[in-house]
Amino acid sequence: MREIAEAADLSPANLYHYFRGKDEILYYCQDRTLDRLFSAVAHARRTSRHAGERLGAVLASHARTLLDDVEGATAHLEVGALPPMLRGRVVIKRDRYERAVRRIVSDGIAGGEFIRVDPALVTRAMLGAVNWTATWFRPEGGTTGADVGAAIADFLVRGISARPRAARQPLRLVHAPRDEQEPT
Amino acid sequence: MREIAEAADLSPANLYHYFRGKDEILYYCQDRTLDRLFSAVAHARRTSRHAGERLGAVLASHARTLLDDVEGATAHLEVGALPPMLRGRVVIKRDRYERAVRRIVSDGIAGGEFIRVDPALVTRAMLGAVNWTATWFRPEGGTTGADVGAAIADFLVRGISARPRAARQPLRLVHAPRDEQEPT
Repeated sequence: MREIAEAADLSPANLYHYFRGKDEILYYCQDRTLDRLFSAVAHARRTSRHAGERLGAVLASHARTLLDDVEGATAHLEVGALPPMLRGRVVIKRDRYERAVRRIVSDGIAGGEFIRVDPALVTRAMLGAVNWTATWFRPEGGTTGADVGAAIADFLVRGISARPRAARQPLRLVHAPRDEQEPT
Repeated sequence: MREIAEAADLSPANLYHYFRGKDEILYYCQDRTLDRLFSAVAHARRTSRHAGERLGAVLASHARTLLDDVEGATAHLEVGALPPMLRGRVVIKRDRYERAVRRIVSDGIAGGEFIRVDPALVTRAMLGAVNWTATWFRPEGGTTGADVGAAIADFLVRGISARPRAARQPLRLVHAPRDEQEPT
């Protein structure tokens, strides 16, 4: 707690005023991230009636939340680090978010915008692709979380679109030269 | 080591004959998994000249390897648990595998089978979706690793196919009833 307080420019006493310990801080970060993901779902519902647009907006926002926010990656990927009771709450809320995304996929299938796939499997594949960005994304690369989010959302939505659009100008990740030259 | 020896029906002395400690066992599992992934790439190259078929075969095999083999999930997802030297070796080999998959994507773009996307970003999105299956797949569900692998590979390849095929009969994951009924 002392190190966290220093990093946050607070006195330990001040930090303890808000949180009983590290577990509560981690829980707070995870819970706040989930609130943002839910906001993105609500915003997508308000701003578009097309399942493809809604889904793309939610996935892009999910990636941005993980990649641009300090607490994002920790929030979504370290659920196992919480004690059982707090973990249980996060898991329930995360499952609810997954169902909200799955609902958009199901709506798109029902409305003919998406091909007939298993909504549960495809939703998990999409969320997996987005969550995994937190393991490899480095902001030093010159690419922003928003760039990655937009490109990955395009790709994922295209995978189930009944009328897939042609390619946009592709995003190029910055590579070390060896990436392209190494024989494989 | 004693518990591992018991689980493997070996004496601890016998286990120590092969491995100096838990780190070496974990490294062995990870290295063996990567060998299997490379075999799948080689096999795909021999058996098809189409980038889409090659990529689909590699991704499906990757999922099967993670989901059906005891050591698979651990192998690919717990690289951070290794001491630095062994971890470095795994990371080098894993990067080489990633480049092999990316090469298939690049070949498909060059040959017109795939739309113009960033091969690095799309490859990581694909591998992320596949790796993430290890966090949610439960073999008790009645669905096999091969089923999940085939369905997820279809979805991912479709996301970049210049001429995406229509839906196959979708795989249905088994859900608890509340999954579909819960308002979100």
